[in-house]
Amino acid sequence: MSGVRFRDPAGSVREGTWHGDAVAFGGETYDLDAVEVLPPCEPEKIVCVGLNYADHAAERGKDVPDRPLLFLKPPNTLSGHGDTVTLPAGKDRIDHEAEIAVVMGRSARNVDAADAMDYVAGFTPLNDLSNRDDQREETNWVRGKAFDNAAPVGPAVAPPADVPSDADIELRVNGEVRQSSSRDQFIFSVPELIEEITTYLTLEPGDVVSTGTPSGVAPLADGDSVEVDLEGVGTLEHDVRIP
Amino acid sequence: MSGVRFRDPAGSVREGTWHGDAVAFGGETYDLDAVEVLPPCEPEKIVCVGLNYADHAAERGKDVPDRPLLFLKPPNTLSGHGDTVTLPAGKDRIDHEAEIAVVMGRSARNVDAADAMDYVAGFTPLNDLSNRDDQREETNWVRGKAFDNAAPVGPAVAPPADVPSDADIELRVNGEVRQSSSRDQFIFSVPELIEEITTYLTLEPGDVVSTGTPSGVAPLADGDSVEVDLEGVGTLEHDVRIP
Repeated sequence: MSGVRFRDPAGSVREGTWHGDAVAFGGETYDLDAVEVLPPCEPEKIVCVGLNYADHAAERGKDVPDRPLLFLKPPNTLSGHGDTVTLPAGKDRIDHEAEIAVVMGRSARNVDAADAMDYVAGFTPLNDLSNRDDQREETNWVRGKAFDNAAPVGPAVAPPADVPSDADIELRVNGEVRQSSSRDQFIFSVPELIEEITTYLTLEPGDVVSTGTPSGVAPLADGDSVEVDLEGVGTLEHDVRIP
Repeated sequence: MSGVRFRDPAGSVREGTWHGDAVAFGGETYDLDAVEVLPPCEPEKIVCVGLNYADHAAERGKDVPDRPLLFLKPPNTLSGHGDTVTLPAGKDRIDHEAEIAVVMGRSARNVDAADAMDYVAGFTPLNDLSNRDDQREETNWVRGKAFDNAAPVGPAVAPPADVPSDADIELRVNGEVRQSSSRDQFIFSVPELIEEITTYLTLEPGDVVSTGTPSGVAPLADGDSVEVDLEGVGTLEHDVRIP
């Protein structure tokens, strides 16, 4: 059963279950249009991985890294399923990046890859929105990757058993497929990523590891409608507004 | 009056006032050795500035940037006054970096420099611990700057009126002065930094902007005792343990 966070019709935030066209909590079931779906977890940090699919490294003109390229998205980047996401104004290119996000279930520090999945609550789709104008000029990608709303995520977190090791990930813009790949194309596996990150940083429950994007990244325009499908979980939907 | 967070002898976390050798809350005064001083704020993110003193840019062999170099420290980096800070093992060089940290008092987005100080709660010393082994090999400084305990901060937050525009900052290791400068040496002022950051990111109450370090950065060794003085606030003290 996938977990979801939502604001119910009375305005209370609930941690319930996801049923595709409805959510449930405490014996009550609500149609999606009666609630506000919230990001499905409350991370204090999102640790993102760059260049974790060989085809995307090639399209960006980069060598495959010998250890994971890491960067950070803080909580101001969170945005939810169904949101209209306002992006920075006046930029030439803000790209979508469909990603498989790992949500941590337990506090994790110095975790061996062999044990890493014991610390995982589940998986959810994430769109790692990327402001290329600034990213390409920055030493660290803060303006490029950590702007407000730069991480639409959700709608639900599915437990690891529901998400196959070769789960498909697909991103569509206005119904047209732009990115399509699967989890078995990773350069670094989820357990390898967790081992590497927790050598340096404690991951807390609710924290997110976003595992990189496949080829096909491309610019978004004002009014675009984005869907990110993750097999075993569901579809993240958000619209784009560029002021 | 400077603000402090501490755990009182009964184990409760209190937001009280700082009196140099004592803390107070609710009519009670406690000697420092009777309480645990905590980081004086609870940021969801620390936005750090690189190369904001011309002399430090020169010692690192870097040009003065034409806009602030930004990077991020998430909440796992927080460490408090009086802590023994455990650093990553097996590294050749982990440096101290004395910094003047700005603590936000109000939610800030798209703030003009002229209004920026209205959003500031105050100032506190911060040691931007930097693992050079990994920093110099990374695209983004995550292993280098965001490891656990990489941001000792505190002990107290002094209001802006208590901290002169040319406030001195000094760092000592085992009593020997290693860094000494003042706020009037900044390349980018506090209001300019807040304007630039909030063009992209919302800063929330408790969030920290750490304003860069002057020249004199140098490696720390196991057992070192570090003090960071900020004029108008007080002295952050922490020990170093390298396993």
